[in-house]
Amino acid sequence: MSDKKTALVVSAHAADFVWRAGGAIALHQKRGWEVTIVCLSYGERGESAKLWKQQGCTLDAVKSARRAEAEAAAQALDAHDIRFFDIGDYPLEMDRAAKDRLVDLIREVQPSFMMSHSLYDPYNTDHMYATKVTMECRMIAQAWGHNPGQKVLGAPQLYLFEPHQTEQMGWKPDVFLDITEVWDRKRAAIECMQGQEHLWDFYTNVAENRGNHFRRNSGGQAGGRNARYAEGFQSVYPRTVDEL
Amino acid sequence: MSDKKTALVVSAHAADFVWRAGGAIALHQKRGWEVTIVCLSYGERGESAKLWKQQGCTLDAVKSARRAEAEAAAQALDAHDIRFFDIGDYPLEMDRAAKDRLVDLIREVQPSFMMSHSLYDPYNTDHMYATKVTMECRMIAQAWGHNPGQKVLGAPQLYLFEPHQTEQMGWKPDVFLDITEVWDRKRAAIECMQGQEHLWDFYTNVAENRGNHFRRNSGGQAGGRNARYAEGFQSVYPRTVDEL
Amino acid sequence: MSDKKTALVVSAHAADFVWRAGGAIALHQKRGWEVTIVCLSYGERGESAKLWKQQGCTLDAVKSARRAEAEAAAQALDAHDIRFFDIGDYPLEMDRAAKDRLVDLIREVQPSFMMSHSLYDPYNTDHMYATKVTMECRMIAQAWGHNPGQKVLGAPQLYLFEPHQTEQMGWKPDVFLDITEVWDRKRAAIECMQGQEHLWDFYTNVAENRGNHFRRNSGGQAGGRNARYAEGFQSVYPRTVDEL
Amino acid sequence: MSDKKTALVVSAHAADFVWRAGGAIALHQKRGWEVTIVCLSYGERGESAKLWKQQGCTLDAVKSARRAEAEAAAQALDAHDIRFFDIGDYPLEMDRAAKDRLVDLIREVQPSFMMSHSLYDPYNTDHMYATKVTMECRMIAQAWGHNPGQKVLGAPQLYLFEPHQTEQMGWKPDVFLDITEVWDRKRAAIECMQGQEHLWDFYTNVAENRGNHFRRNSGGQAGGRNARYAEGFQSVYPRTVDEL
Amino acid sequence: MSDKKTALVVSAHAADFVWRAGGAIALHQKRGWEVTIVCLSYGERGESAKLWKQQGCTLDAVKSARRAEAEAAAQALDAHDIRFFDIGDYPLEMDRAAKDRLVDLIREVQPSFMMSHSLYDPYNTDHMYATKVTMECRMIAQAWGHNPGQKVLGAPQLYLFEPHQTEQMGWKPDVFLDITEVWDRKRAAIECMQGQEHLWDFYTNVAENRGNHFRRNSGGQAGGRNARYAEGFQSVYPRTVDEL
Amino acid sequence: MSDKKTALVVSAHAADFVWRAGGAIALHQKRGWEVTIVCLSYGERGESAKLWKQQGCTLDAVKSARRAEAEAAAQALDAHDIRFFDIGDYPLEMDRAAKDRLVDLIREVQPSFMMSHSLYDPYNTDHMYATKVTMECRMIAQAWGHNPGQKVLGAPQLYLFEPHQTEQMGWKPDVFLDITEVWDRKRAAIECMQGQEHLWDFYTNVAENRGNHFRRNSGGQAGGRNARYAEGFQSVYPRTVDEL
Repeated sequence: MSDKKTALVVSAHAADFVWRAGGAIALHQKRGWEVTIVCLSYGERGESAKLWKQQGCTLDAVKSARRAEAEAAAQALDAHDIRFFDIGDYPLEMDRAAKDRLVDLIREVQPSFMMSHSLYDPYNTDHMYATKVTMECRMIAQAWGHNPGQKVLGAPQLYLFEPHQTEQMGWKPDVFLDITEVWDRKRAAIECMQGQEHLWDFYTNVAENRGNHFRRNSGGQAGGRNARYAEGFQSVYPRTVDEL
Repeated sequence: MSDKKTALVVSAHAADFVWRAGGAIALHQKRGWEVTIVCLSYGERGESAKLWKQQGCTLDAVKSARRAEAEAAAQALDAHDIRFFDIGDYPLEMDRAAKDRLVDLIREVQPSFMMSHSLYDPYNTDHMYATKVTMECRMIAQAWGHNPGQKVLGAPQLYLFEPHQTEQMGWKPDVFLDITEVWDRKRAAIECMQGQEHLWDFYTNVAENRGNHFRRNSGGQAGGRNARYAEGFQSVYPRTVDEL
Repeated sequence: MSDKKTALVVSAHAADFVWRAGGAIALHQKRGWEVTIVCLSYGERGESAKLWKQQGCTLDAVKSARRAEAEAAAQALDAHDIRFFDIGDYPLEMDRAAKDRLVDLIREVQPSFMMSHSLYDPYNTDHMYATKVTMECRMIAQAWGHNPGQKVLGAPQLYLFEPHQTEQMGWKPDVFLDITEVWDRKRAAIECMQGQEHLWDFYTNVAENRGNHFRRNSGGQAGGRNARYAEGFQSVYPRTVDEL
Repeated sequence: MSDKKTALVVSAHAADFVWRAGGAIALHQKRGWEVTIVCLSYGERGESAKLWKQQGCTLDAVKSARRAEAEAAAQALDAHDIRFFDIGDYPLEMDRAAKDRLVDLIREVQPSFMMSHSLYDPYNTDHMYATKVTMECRMIAQAWGHNPGQKVLGAPQLYLFEPHQTEQMGWKPDVFLDITEVWDRKRAAIECMQGQEHLWDFYTNVAENRGNHFRRNSGGQAGGRNARYAEGFQSVYPRTVDEL
Repeated sequence: MSDKKTALVVSAHAADFVWRAGGAIALHQKRGWEVTIVCLSYGERGESAKLWKQQGCTLDAVKSARRAEAEAAAQALDAHDIRFFDIGDYPLEMDRAAKDRLVDLIREVQPSFMMSHSLYDPYNTDHMYATKVTMECRMIAQAWGHNPGQKVLGAPQLYLFEPHQTEQMGWKPDVFLDITEVWDRKRAAIECMQGQEHLWDFYTNVAENRGNHFRRNSGGQAGGRNARYAEGFQSVYPRTVDEL
Repeated sequence: MSDKKTALVVSAHAADFVWRAGGAIALHQKRGWEVTIVCLSYGERGESAKLWKQQGCTLDAVKSARRAEAEAAAQALDAHDIRFFDIGDYPLEMDRAAKDRLVDLIREVQPSFMMSHSLYDPYNTDHMYATKVTMECRMIAQAWGHNPGQKVLGAPQLYLFEPHQTEQMGWKPDVFLDITEVWDRKRAAIECMQGQEHLWDFYTNVAENRGNHFRRNSGGQAGGRNARYAEGFQSVYPRTVDEL
């Protein structure tokens, strides 16, 4: 195991990590972390409308295309690793074996923090399901009696990244991350998502406006940092600190 | 103005800062901060039952006794400064002049963070009122058009410190501070509160159990920090960071 | 002071206590309690449309009519006492003197429980204001330093009685009271409210349906009590018991 | 009184109506409504930093500048009327006379719907105060006993327009309005706000992303309306309809 | 496929659609819609106490009786179609095949809106489970990759109809539908439910009181519509409109 | 079946009932009730770190040790009965057969009240899962059509006992039980949990501080009961009473 700090991003579908956590991935890589991404599914059924509208499209073709896009995006972000569990989507359903596989990955990575979707999403139940399972697997990974002998997990933060309609999902960010210095990487990763071009400008707008929120919360017109792009996250667990 | 980092603790009554933020005050002082405490009232009517049960007690005598206790406690915590606004309690009511006075103090201190009570408290409406006014005065202190020429306030965090019955107040801590190294100071400050001895062990228990929560959230049985005493706080505003 | 158990019902307008707590008043009176009602206003401006539609109506005439109705209703319920503070409505506003008057009444009655409106009411801000002030005055009445020498208040429960549109007010009952044996009294009190006849059947329906909820929660088809009429209340504070 | 449908927008400060409801104002005007705007203050102290940074700035000069901008913006939106109450900001405080003035305006306009700020805003307490008072004055305007003889108010919806950091304010839109056809007017109005140029692109991004939300909620990739700009609103009261 | 507008009502047990959405069904049919009802189970185990108390009762007999009642009620409401999935109740559990069946039905109906139960129900977990699955199946029905070639679903509203104890379920109606003109049909449908006669008057009271709420919210004493019966619904998704 | 009053405590893991409900168990036994405990799992994988750290530890050895501790604790509390379902933990998963087993037990015990975990627990998903299933099985046990002929369940309260970090779990107690007279029994039971000695003082502190809350809520300095130890519980369902 590397002695670098590590993080694990759990993405329900192949593209989610790009829109929602691409900046965090690129930034932490740049700071010397190793960030691993796991795509539970390719989003092959639910988030590939453009491909399915083509003549003669097959499930395998969609998966391949989505995987290629996700790998390219991960590379653009300089992510340490990307894994594909190919569990199927719409609906995403994880049996005991799939959960154990995620637990194994968590223990392998030993992340300082994890990331996943919002706790609620009435538009996309795969998203909230992914977080539910992530929370459950985090608990299992902490259990001394699960695969005794393996290194157990500590207590990593679980950050919930930004969903598509924040207010409908009851998602409230409590931390903004300045991603200005890696924005080019995130935009490049976004542009790897050929099947969802309608979202490119949407998430660019989000990044710009979160930059505004960063400036306001770091001091506003009386000294706020001039962040131009940011990402927001909601923490599930309290922090532990030595100084406020 | 000093070039040290500063903080401002807004206490509705003279003793609140001791139970709820004594550790944070002592710890930040020890780390080189300057922490100023403001007691909006002495808690002379509502939180001085022991004194009022004495024969011949007067309002002035209660105020003097409470002030002496609070000053002793501030000294035990090595607080940079303590101010008394003597606004009256039960109910605490602040007119425009009182608010302006608090705005002046905020601008004088230029705190990196502020502290006050929970947003809701059905047992003690002074507490939630103090926070309501603190939030309002923070806004005024940021306004360029209020007393033009004065240095305006940035965007300090507002931490809500721990109320007496957390669940009834809807208070949820999102950060735990390890106060082990200054616990002796906090306990000494607590013991300055002669009129409320029935709360000494209560808040010692709180500190011990928050220590347990600190350990759990910092890694638990797989590497958590061995904090023995802690304090919890709820943040009102999101943080802005460079790394998660 | 009587050695009977006592209760205090705080009604923003003259008729509120009838619709929302009439059963509780009559029932506790029947069980030997002394229940005092205080009407902070007559509801003369906001809840007397029928009177104002009459030619030549004056404020004093409305107040008189409303007072007469409220007194008749209180009598129908066999209430121990009814007080009128005549503070004015729409909006209801209480200054320090008005609050002190309510504190005095609370201390005079020394209630085992108090009742008032829901915490939120976007249709009728007088209602939530009355509860806000009641909560504040309960706190003041407990203070040893307020009018030293007077008997201080213990820790009575504050029940929030049923508002007109429960879901819009975020009101959730946690206790149902079987008022079957005093339903005739409540209906008689309701019929004293000549100015609001459009509400008679509404609150009869409410009482019947709360009776259904009582049956369901007391055992349903496997032994529930056959309550035909009930009232629901939301508790602000936790109960303290010797047995669950 | 005109027989056109009317609406009333209550803006705490002079610029709020532009960012948050400019599209709704322009669109309803275009559809034949008469929309009246009331600015409770000029935002002269709290939202005019750029002006205050100029040498020799005075309160009157700021007010004049802000008024001129707001009038220009109202004109750009083709608003029926704009009123300035000049109550003062940071903090906004309305006494009985100011409330009566707002009640008079509500009765004069007889709006089919009203608009104001979010219910909660820890950054800007003026905003939530404006809504609190609007709700109170809506109630008073409905009272038959307030200024008997005046035409009383019906039950207009109160829409809460979009705040600056939606998630921190607990604001959740339940209706999206397609403002594509009046976007040029809104952008023109935005550009009247010379003192807050840092917000122009922010609210353009908001309008574009709300357009995306409109498309998604009106059918998405299976037939959603191609709205390019939208505004979101949160309703306080339930709707009453003949068909779902 | 018909060119009429369509709706789909998802009922966990055979009788739910009657009490909770009977008015909406009859009214939309009368307005030219085609409303399809699906009963996921007959409520044969959990909501047929009266039948089970009879000597020699069998599961098949209960199902037949419940089906006959539901069909009669659907006919009384003039519903376009009623389907029975016979999945079993107490607990209701849907495997992948059952979900696919519901997805097929949703795509077949192509509803403009859907209806189901409240999001939470601590008394009847089948109810909230039905809504959870409905939300999931709505998502699958929208996926281009699910049974490619089938017509995909747009973005129909999901209305949550009224549960038995609204406040305990956290259900809050945001729209009231005037069902006065079809009340006779709803009452007739209600009377088809021979096994649950104890609920007839309960839901008649509900309809009357929701009528009162309709009147209040449509203008009250200053011009509200004289609805005598209404139903309330909670929307899951925001609306998209051209005018407020 | 005994004619004593009965209660059923559902514990996800073997030790939960001790920390969270030990006082309630001992007290009700002392008052003549019969309290049955069911441990769904032994907590063998997730809550037995101390044992797993020993050389050569096996799953069976851990289960045996945990069972022995739980039996000793139940005896210390004088519990009527303790059952072990041995379903496995981390994650706890109950299939139809396991649920039926719990339904059978509920019907056998016919409890006046039930107890289980908080509705939400992001640290330990087994806990919230246990409550979800308990709620579901309570419903099934009430169904006349489930195992016809068996005595059906009434409508027992479901109390949620205290979790480890109350605020993170959104748990709010609405009733405090004075356990002073059985504290020695609870402490003795706690000391049976050899594997979790780090929690002994934690839960002693909890009991003392809940004693303080009991005193405060039963009258405070104006006559509150001198409870030294207490337990808090959150009720899921409303109470039904004859007197407030």
